[in-house]
Amino acid sequence: MSKQVGVGLVGYGYWGPNLARNFATNPATRLVSICELSGERRLAAERALPGVPTTDSFEELLNNEEIDAIAIATPTASHFALANASLLAGKHAFVEKPLADSSAAATELVELAASSGLILHVDHTFVYTSAVEFLANSIQAGDLGELLYFDSSRVNLGLFQPDVNVLWDLAVHDLSILQFITQRSPIAVSATGVFHPRSSQASAAFLTVSYEDHFAAHIDVSWMSPVKLRRTLISGTSKMLVYDDLEQIEKIKIFDAGVDFPESADEMRNLLVSYRTGDMISPRLHETEALAAEVTHFAECVSSGNPSKTDGVLGAALVRILEAATTSLDNGGAPIPIKD
Amino acid sequence: MSKQVGVGLVGYGYWGPNLARNFATNPATRLVSICELSGERRLAAERALPGVPTTDSFEELLNNEEIDAIAIATPTASHFALANASLLAGKHAFVEKPLADSSAAATELVELAASSGLILHVDHTFVYTSAVEFLANSIQAGDLGELLYFDSSRVNLGLFQPDVNVLWDLAVHDLSILQFITQRSPIAVSATGVFHPRSSQASAAFLTVSYEDHFAAHIDVSWMSPVKLRRTLISGTSKMLVYDDLEQIEKIKIFDAGVDFPESADEMRNLLVSYRTGDMISPRLHETEALAAEVTHFAECVSSGNPSKTDGVLGAALVRILEAATTSLDNGGAPIPIKD
Amino acid sequence: MSKQVGVGLVGYGYWGPNLARNFATNPATRLVSICELSGERRLAAERALPGVPTTDSFEELLNNEEIDAIAIATPTASHFALANASLLAGKHAFVEKPLADSSAAATELVELAASSGLILHVDHTFVYTSAVEFLANSIQAGDLGELLYFDSSRVNLGLFQPDVNVLWDLAVHDLSILQFITQRSPIAVSATGVFHPRSSQASAAFLTVSYEDHFAAHIDVSWMSPVKLRRTLISGTSKMLVYDDLEQIEKIKIFDAGVDFPESADEMRNLLVSYRTGDMISPRLHETEALAAEVTHFAECVSSGNPSKTDGVLGAALVRILEAATTSLDNGGAPIPIKD
Amino acid sequence: MSKQVGVGLVGYGYWGPNLARNFATNPATRLVSICELSGERRLAAERALPGVPTTDSFEELLNNEEIDAIAIATPTASHFALANASLLAGKHAFVEKPLADSSAAATELVELAASSGLILHVDHTFVYTSAVEFLANSIQAGDLGELLYFDSSRVNLGLFQPDVNVLWDLAVHDLSILQFITQRSPIAVSATGVFHPRSSQASAAFLTVSYEDHFAAHIDVSWMSPVKLRRTLISGTSKMLVYDDLEQIEKIKIFDAGVDFPESADEMRNLLVSYRTGDMISPRLHETEALAAEVTHFAECVSSGNPSKTDGVLGAALVRILEAATTSLDNGGAPIPIKD
Repeated sequence: MSKQVGVGLVGYGYWGPNLARNFATNPATRLVSICELSGERRLAAERALPGVPTTDSFEELLNNEEIDAIAIATPTASHFALANASLLAGKHAFVEKPLADSSAAATELVELAASSGLILHVDHTFVYTSAVEFLANSIQAGDLGELLYFDSSRVNLGLFQPDVNVLWDLAVHDLSILQFITQRSPIAVSATGVFHPRSSQASAAFLTVSYEDHFAAHIDVSWMSPVKLRRTLISGTSKMLVYDDLEQIEKIKIFDAGVDFPESADEMRNLLVSYRTGDMISPRLHETEALAAEVTHFAECVSSGNPSKTDGVLGAALVRILEAATTSLDNGGAPIPIKD
Repeated sequence: MSKQVGVGLVGYGYWGPNLARNFATNPATRLVSICELSGERRLAAERALPGVPTTDSFEELLNNEEIDAIAIATPTASHFALANASLLAGKHAFVEKPLADSSAAATELVELAASSGLILHVDHTFVYTSAVEFLANSIQAGDLGELLYFDSSRVNLGLFQPDVNVLWDLAVHDLSILQFITQRSPIAVSATGVFHPRSSQASAAFLTVSYEDHFAAHIDVSWMSPVKLRRTLISGTSKMLVYDDLEQIEKIKIFDAGVDFPESADEMRNLLVSYRTGDMISPRLHETEALAAEVTHFAECVSSGNPSKTDGVLGAALVRILEAATTSLDNGGAPIPIKD
Repeated sequence: MSKQVGVGLVGYGYWGPNLARNFATNPATRLVSICELSGERRLAAERALPGVPTTDSFEELLNNEEIDAIAIATPTASHFALANASLLAGKHAFVEKPLADSSAAATELVELAASSGLILHVDHTFVYTSAVEFLANSIQAGDLGELLYFDSSRVNLGLFQPDVNVLWDLAVHDLSILQFITQRSPIAVSATGVFHPRSSQASAAFLTVSYEDHFAAHIDVSWMSPVKLRRTLISGTSKMLVYDDLEQIEKIKIFDAGVDFPESADEMRNLLVSYRTGDMISPRLHETEALAAEVTHFAECVSSGNPSKTDGVLGAALVRILEAATTSLDNGGAPIPIKD
Repeated sequence: MSKQVGVGLVGYGYWGPNLARNFATNPATRLVSICELSGERRLAAERALPGVPTTDSFEELLNNEEIDAIAIATPTASHFALANASLLAGKHAFVEKPLADSSAAATELVELAASSGLILHVDHTFVYTSAVEFLANSIQAGDLGELLYFDSSRVNLGLFQPDVNVLWDLAVHDLSILQFITQRSPIAVSATGVFHPRSSQASAAFLTVSYEDHFAAHIDVSWMSPVKLRRTLISGTSKMLVYDDLEQIEKIKIFDAGVDFPESADEMRNLLVSYRTGDMISPRLHETEALAAEVTHFAECVSSGNPSKTDGVLGAALVRILEAATTSLDNGGAPIPIKD
């Protein structure tokens, strides 16, 4: 096996502990140091991972020669500054989603990584689940026929965030899945939102993503739902499926269902369409932790120099969609083109 | 009991048989005659209701003195002409939803009914279910606190319709429920849609309805979903609920759940919000056929002269929303104001 | 098409109206007359089926030459007397389940039908559902491998019956399905029960049915459950399945799951077994009313003289199991052999 | 806070790691040493809990003066010898369920603990869940009225065990819940089972537990089910409930449902019974790890000398039921009395 990748982690809040555990236990990585400003959280890190030193100085990570890569699990607003400094210090970067809080900042990071020959990886974890991998393979193999639409609900009673709207917090997951499984670039978005009377950020939002052809995607996210839903409908001309991430066993159900159109316009007038439904198949998926697979992939990219499946280019594309969506939301749903 | 209301029915297609059965068996109404152009369907009507004469002449209904009211269950495009003729002939009208295919036509019917002193009733059946009645009572009693949002999914693998988009076919139900339980008038809509490559009408659509304050509603409808969903989330500042019309027993679940905000702006910066969840209650609902209750209500309106709960005024308001939504859909989601 | 079978129906209570509707509308049968002692129910029959005469005299049915077959939908205690008289009068018999309230009576009916050359059909409706037909075909084709076990729950909040225990009311359905799909004869039963303090009949019961080899079946029935369950697990050495009759779409789910045993006894000590799980398939089933298919089958049997799929021989076998189960229940679960 | 209880753990297989983590992190306990024969598993223990020494000598635990209590997580057959030695060495004992493989052995441990003044605790973890605590409180407060029946399903595709049947592996959980929430002693059992052709132990079993009055309990367990079920129905004369341990949120649903009997025998003949159903309530439960609460309780018992909620007396009573059930199973369901 090749040399372990030395990782420094900054941010030990909500998601940081999961990254820490995975970088510490993955055979391809070594967790060298944890940087966290809060003394209480540093203590928590020390209890959970006795052998790993902690610090409140980010400079230390930048200057530590055992550290090959820096993982950034801090609030979105700080991603750019920390990733930028990491790359300038010659460290690969593993950045929490979304990559940055503006497309300009995201693009700058992508360019810096490219010119430095460093890996810029964004933690779009869902891409590394066996369910999303299955979807990508099915769709790219043409099993669904021509894609008709994608409709996702990701709602729950969630912590309101003061600095970003719910699209940046939740829809980013659906957008990463959508992008990964279709490998297509949207041309425009329309978004609307609902504001809780005591919050200045939209806490529920409804996003439609348009493409050059008939295909379109819709994403419904909320922090104000009494129930938790994680469900995506994907329909094609040959087959249709449901991906429900809350299901333990039957996460994906593929229906041999579709719409048949009459051959001639004449029949069309009278008969309209008929639909067919056949058997349903729920494929067996592997049960591996997505983050473990992602860390392995990241270490391979660092070793080989190959770009990550969720590299900065993808991460910046998603930030451009989120940015356009927020503009649309501020304009009552007016369609906003996606800049390339 | 007062005299039975004599009813003539025009249209014995998909929904007509349900109307026929209810008008025939309700003690407050008498089904006098059925008008249907298709000979095959007239035969089906005769087999199902042996004592009721059929005809292919709508004129006969208009001229039949035993007929007090005409029920219209034909395609939407014909509603205006048939309802207009009925009212001009002095007959009350019971019209399938949506009331008409344009707001101008709908308004003309409302005015004609008003000036003639006749009942104009629109068949928004959901309003007469015990579930929607329960929702209306809860919300109007303030049980949910201030309303935050309404989010409804009504999707299935459905018959494409050649002359209307999916909003006019499916979202009309959610709009009637929304209007009835909130008793509020929206100010604007934004809608986007997905077109099946072989159809000129949107076969999936996503509609956001805005009001003067923070409250907003979202409706997701589709003829292209492999699974059938009929679920509405309604959140208020005090309680939140789920109304799932496909559930046999637990159609409504009320969650003692909500969002608590910190008192001061200072706390706000640090703490954001917390959420509370308590017990869930699923109320027992009466199991009566909605259409039976609706026919009884219609007969009472005809006898008393009081307006129906789903009168032409409501029906025309919903047509205005559908018309604006279609305009928005044709413009990529651009917000369209609702005319009063 | 051959001549229609003329049917007289006795009993228009809970199930009778369903039989009446089917005998009246099936092209292969004609409903000649309905016999019912209650004047109120005769009135209900006349309203629902205007052209069919009613009577309170069973003699009239026996003497009516237009009647080829008599359908008996009265309480179980009266089945023997009515079916016996019907067969003696030369009429074919269609008897509600269970065939009789004792195995002696059931056997006597079977013998009388055989000696008279008449059809004796028992209304075990589940056998005529597309779900049970699918199960029978799968199992008899060996798709599940060697059958391991069958475990069924049929519980709800149900009307207590004063003259029979819950096994005769509910378990009879599971026993008919079990018999039809396995085509095997059990050798013994053990049953236990729970008695509501105010009822002299067991209102929940647990029945185990044993066979000559390893296979066994278990049936759990109750009138005292807050929720309704209709679920059967069937496991084989190759595949396992769940049949849930309350599911609208996914009534049957077949799991590519099983248990693998180590080859040698030596491995056995250390390794025990492992299990495998693969894809799940839910087959598309036809949506036809079981009773309609059953009436068609009955009419064919009357015409052809071939025995019914649910003839008196099957019906009597099930009565013998119920009788033995009741004896076991009265003896705390002691095993009781099934007489041939 | 009082002095921490020093704990030695023997057995680091399937369940041992959970005990180790809890004894190591609970503030009331200190994990002093882990004894495990397998070198591979000792290594796993050292990786997971770097500061805790391991050994392959059980003698070391017995002789270690820092150890106040020994936790035994080894196969059932070894429980007696290890617990006996622990108690003789003056150590409190925390024993995996079931307490022993025979009622004689279980009784001997109970007597030894009593005469030594030591705590003998059995790890019936379900008793420490918030769901079972809620059930116990409800039932003992009389919320359900008079108890009618208890019916539990605990089935899945599970690892076959070579030395015990499925009752000892799975039904032991339901029996502990049943005993804890009713606080009643059964008088007899009847059990039947299904044997996989390649196993000498019953791999599915059906157990009925009888009491002096009308109440009875039924438990259905299996290692051969394609789906996992963990559902218990509990009905009383006032209310009925469902406890589904696989539900994340709505684990307990209480139905305002029951059976009403007519006042007079005369009505009884005609009317039978009617049932009523009202609202359903699903109570909010606390989300704490049951094992954490259990370890805290055990430490309190060690400190105070008070008996545990799941002490040896309870553990031995459950072993007597399992022993009688196995005898019944070997005799085709014949009822076997429970010895006091």
